[in-house]
Amino acid sequence: MGIRVAIAGASGYAGGELIRLVAGHPEFELVAATAHSQAGHRLDVVHPQLAGLDLILGETDAATLADADLVFLALPHGQSAALAAQLPPEVRVVDLGADHRLADPYAWANYYGGTHAGPWTYGLPELPGQRELIAGATRVANTGCYAAAIILALAPLVAAGAAAPADVVVVAASGTSGAGKAAKPHLLGSEVMGDLSPYRVGTHQHVPEIKQATGATGLSLTPVLAPMPRGILATVTAVPARGVDPRAVLAEAYADAPFVHVLPEGAWPHTAATLGSNSCHLQATVDVDSRRMIVLSTLDNLGKGAAGQAVQNANLMCGLPETTGLSVWGVAP
Amino acid sequence: MGIRVAIAGASGYAGGELIRLVAGHPEFELVAATAHSQAGHRLDVVHPQLAGLDLILGETDAATLADADLVFLALPHGQSAALAAQLPPEVRVVDLGADHRLADPYAWANYYGGTHAGPWTYGLPELPGQRELIAGATRVANTGCYAAAIILALAPLVAAGAAAPADVVVVAASGTSGAGKAAKPHLLGSEVMGDLSPYRVGTHQHVPEIKQATGATGLSLTPVLAPMPRGILATVTAVPARGVDPRAVLAEAYADAPFVHVLPEGAWPHTAATLGSNSCHLQATVDVDSRRMIVLSTLDNLGKGAAGQAVQNANLMCGLPETTGLSVWGVAP
Amino acid sequence: MGIRVAIAGASGYAGGELIRLVAGHPEFELVAATAHSQAGHRLDVVHPQLAGLDLILGETDAATLADADLVFLALPHGQSAALAAQLPPEVRVVDLGADHRLADPYAWANYYGGTHAGPWTYGLPELPGQRELIAGATRVANTGCYAAAIILALAPLVAAGAAAPADVVVVAASGTSGAGKAAKPHLLGSEVMGDLSPYRVGTHQHVPEIKQATGATGLSLTPVLAPMPRGILATVTAVPARGVDPRAVLAEAYADAPFVHVLPEGAWPHTAATLGSNSCHLQATVDVDSRRMIVLSTLDNLGKGAAGQAVQNANLMCGLPETTGLSVWGVAP
Amino acid sequence: MGIRVAIAGASGYAGGELIRLVAGHPEFELVAATAHSQAGHRLDVVHPQLAGLDLILGETDAATLADADLVFLALPHGQSAALAAQLPPEVRVVDLGADHRLADPYAWANYYGGTHAGPWTYGLPELPGQRELIAGATRVANTGCYAAAIILALAPLVAAGAAAPADVVVVAASGTSGAGKAAKPHLLGSEVMGDLSPYRVGTHQHVPEIKQATGATGLSLTPVLAPMPRGILATVTAVPARGVDPRAVLAEAYADAPFVHVLPEGAWPHTAATLGSNSCHLQATVDVDSRRMIVLSTLDNLGKGAAGQAVQNANLMCGLPETTGLSVWGVAP
Repeated sequence: MGIRVAIAGASGYAGGELIRLVAGHPEFELVAATAHSQAGHRLDVVHPQLAGLDLILGETDAATLADADLVFLALPHGQSAALAAQLPPEVRVVDLGADHRLADPYAWANYYGGTHAGPWTYGLPELPGQRELIAGATRVANTGCYAAAIILALAPLVAAGAAAPADVVVVAASGTSGAGKAAKPHLLGSEVMGDLSPYRVGTHQHVPEIKQATGATGLSLTPVLAPMPRGILATVTAVPARGVDPRAVLAEAYADAPFVHVLPEGAWPHTAATLGSNSCHLQATVDVDSRRMIVLSTLDNLGKGAAGQAVQNANLMCGLPETTGLSVWGVAP
Repeated sequence: MGIRVAIAGASGYAGGELIRLVAGHPEFELVAATAHSQAGHRLDVVHPQLAGLDLILGETDAATLADADLVFLALPHGQSAALAAQLPPEVRVVDLGADHRLADPYAWANYYGGTHAGPWTYGLPELPGQRELIAGATRVANTGCYAAAIILALAPLVAAGAAAPADVVVVAASGTSGAGKAAKPHLLGSEVMGDLSPYRVGTHQHVPEIKQATGATGLSLTPVLAPMPRGILATVTAVPARGVDPRAVLAEAYADAPFVHVLPEGAWPHTAATLGSNSCHLQATVDVDSRRMIVLSTLDNLGKGAAGQAVQNANLMCGLPETTGLSVWGVAP
Repeated sequence: MGIRVAIAGASGYAGGELIRLVAGHPEFELVAATAHSQAGHRLDVVHPQLAGLDLILGETDAATLADADLVFLALPHGQSAALAAQLPPEVRVVDLGADHRLADPYAWANYYGGTHAGPWTYGLPELPGQRELIAGATRVANTGCYAAAIILALAPLVAAGAAAPADVVVVAASGTSGAGKAAKPHLLGSEVMGDLSPYRVGTHQHVPEIKQATGATGLSLTPVLAPMPRGILATVTAVPARGVDPRAVLAEAYADAPFVHVLPEGAWPHTAATLGSNSCHLQATVDVDSRRMIVLSTLDNLGKGAAGQAVQNANLMCGLPETTGLSVWGVAP
Repeated sequence: MGIRVAIAGASGYAGGELIRLVAGHPEFELVAATAHSQAGHRLDVVHPQLAGLDLILGETDAATLADADLVFLALPHGQSAALAAQLPPEVRVVDLGADHRLADPYAWANYYGGTHAGPWTYGLPELPGQRELIAGATRVANTGCYAAAIILALAPLVAAGAAAPADVVVVAASGTSGAGKAAKPHLLGSEVMGDLSPYRVGTHQHVPEIKQATGATGLSLTPVLAPMPRGILATVTAVPARGVDPRAVLAEAYADAPFVHVLPEGAWPHTAATLGSNSCHLQATVDVDSRRMIVLSTLDNLGKGAAGQAVQNANLMCGLPETTGLSVWGVAP
């Protein structure tokens, strides 16, 4: 018998991807999937891609979830903390929301607002020493999707002194599933197809999370909505230390990371190559004209940016091999 | 140690998907992947989605392939027969090309031309009795991608006397990966995005294959290229027998088929729901105005329409459960 | 000084396209653009593509509209009739909604419901004799978008006895702007990109309109939502009279129509080629296997399918050349 | 009788858009459209969106072109100079290629190679004093497409001392038509849909052009191919002077420019809003965290980035109002 898994917020995009991964996981057994307005509906009506999975969405409440060994919370920001507080301490919990990511209450207040729940173990196993912390934790805060792409690109370079932390400029484009499943006019297909549209320029809530995890002290982030369902491309530029080879620094940092691939020289990352996988693809260079370091990072915002990473964290928390039930390879074209 | 697998034509889209499936298959071991003009190149340069899979594409020749227990041929039409003839009889072979699909040499001459190689066991396990034939075969001809979608929609209805075979009208739209990876001007992204374009109207080479497998005697097929990488939607209409419920006929026919899902009443198939899976989604109704039966069928042209189906056939040929290494669930959105 | 034009329903997609066309029209002067929930907003915030057009959306009421010489109504179905009834008889009105399209109250009741307002002059100038009727009318009912594409493909063939009216099978795919601007979950970009999804199979409200305008007596219509903002591709099949050349029939019927192009033999219509134009592209053949006639028809659902056609009708009503202010040529790629 | 216009390179994407604009221009008369491998073909076969325009593509040679009053050269880089040299001095020539953009032979050698033809009048009318220079010129070098978007965003800020020229970081994404019509594997629809892919990172040939036109001294440019046919979004960041309001600087600079729109505060530019138009949309802010200035710029790469701008320049050269035959408004959605 497997590890009993419950998923709260199963009707959203991250929730649907979590169900797909959990249902195909050799050690996990899905015992409950809950929702809010969609509770009581058939799963295959809410998520047609899960046709054949015979399940009714339940109500999101602590009693339902507490019966599981492992709980994934894929709720809107601000709704995880209260629910998590009602779960027994021995139940392992991975929160895909932002509630437990930030240590700094001022950053929380500035970018999210409301009560600051306080930090859990940060769920990015590829940070130095983090894999072990996650393995020993029962409460883990998954990263934000942009944050994952940008931190993986930047953290080893700042840590090695290869990139100056004070003037990091990031432009990051995301597929529309990153904006969620709520029906908003600007997310209509008619609006997003054929369109690139920047938003929350300089005010995106992942800025403090990225700074916390990388040590960057000045970070300009311009997020862009791109005409594709999934995928993030982050272009991260910084002032390099003299003579540094950023690709070599990244290659060394991720030599043993099964999901982070520093591409062969001359190959640039594509978002499409990561679709459906838990992989992050990286490449780096130093620009000949400006002498800025440019790091390109791609991942699937619902994979390594959300549900895949959550399963990776859960694997570690449960003592399983990190890669169990996850794909290194993308579904392309 | 697993079943040793070789893939010829590994540089194309079906070839790339085959590698992804074989690399993730618990009983298969990929021992060779061969190509023509791309031989000698790194796999992760030809297929960036397979980053981390350390492999060089080999030359396509019989000696390389003969060393495997199981060979997938994903070659352009007309190139499989000569190569297959050089493989030892005990090597199991699944041909994703058309060479061995048609029993009728005149149909072959009309739609393909060149030497008619003659039929192998037809690789659609969901046809009555076919699962057993495939399990006993060492040579299996995978279906065409349009053919798979249309046959699954139509065959049980003709067989049950529910649909008249003489006047079947099909419009079927495919994602662009169905047109292959050769760089042709009309397949450029600039041309296909935002565009629906019919082609080979009334002359598509899957017509005789569909007629052979379903018993249809008159079939109008209008293929359409659609602005998406993957997916087929076939709209199949026919004259129904009086009082027939086509959905019930299909539901009964596929009650035990793990990959064919007749959707709940009121739900129409979406191509996106099948992406990356080996599933086919079906729905049927009788039109109130025209009294024609309309059956809608969706699948992933590289999944159930090509590589996924090939693995399903190979599983049967190797005595494995049909679903081994395949996903029932799509990657969506 | 030009013809004074008012547009009701200016915040929707057809409304936005109407404003673009009217603002660029050499004889029209836009004096009012009205909306419902968006009244009071800047036009360039509601329609960013109209940046530089300095205008505030007004309230939709008869007093505002009555001040114009020419009124376009681009309102949800069921809202035009009451408003139109309040306008002075000398004001020319083109209704882009369905309220005044159907002559048959039973068809209205079946497909729309509510009070049947009764028919106006049908606004498809390419039907025989219709150009003259429109030129003499002060009330014109624009066609539906699917209806325009299908009627242009079918009407001359039925009229010439070339196509049998009793068994017409149509599959027609539309870009998402045809579904309007209301934020509905299934119209989200994440849902529609990469997806073909049929809907209202056999129950679409354009069926009676097409039958009325073409003389078809049995019509199966399967509408499909396609992953592109604009464009309709209709595949129309029917049983041909013996020996008929459907392309020749169409070429003769549209020899003098500036916006309907029967393509050179061997060329199939593309939706993308009609984007932004008021053109309809046609091609026809007889299928070799099934002996069915297949007619392919493409147009821009917001152009010849809505706003462009409305301007074409208005030109005729105002005694202007039919093509004034309209483009024959598409914006591609 | 109008100004007689010839277009060389009419088979490409910029060429097709030029024909559309010239054919709809009230003062221009298209007398020749020439091509290389497509010479002798019907225009409506090469450009299906121009169905109804009865024209055969001619051979590109000086004799054909010299008969016109105005010649547009839309040729691959390196092919304009030799052809232009053979045209009579009184013939007005707009070159859409790069041959005559750069004043610095070293920059030419570094980024393009081959013989440096030397600069013509730079064709960006919105630069201070440039409108008058263009009006007096018979040879004008159109800008690059990325260059247009980035220069319009940056030039007034550097000129006003509002942005430091030494550390400009740009990420700019383009629709695929910017990559041309040559059939290359990485431009296939299957590859580009759902994908963002960076290319020529730090080595793009528009860098010296942008520096020349803006006075930037250090410029990092990361170009990205985006999954849409048309449109450029440039994100331009720089270190601002203390207390500067970049939006106000831009609004003042473009107060009289009919095609450059500084959007209302709070509105960010969308690429889709500029499709088919000759407009550029701008917005600017200062990032709260990093204190960098961020300027967003969008345009249609075939419009203001190529063919539209060429017509704007030609209008000025011919003494016509700048806006003749061009649209300020985009075709959206």
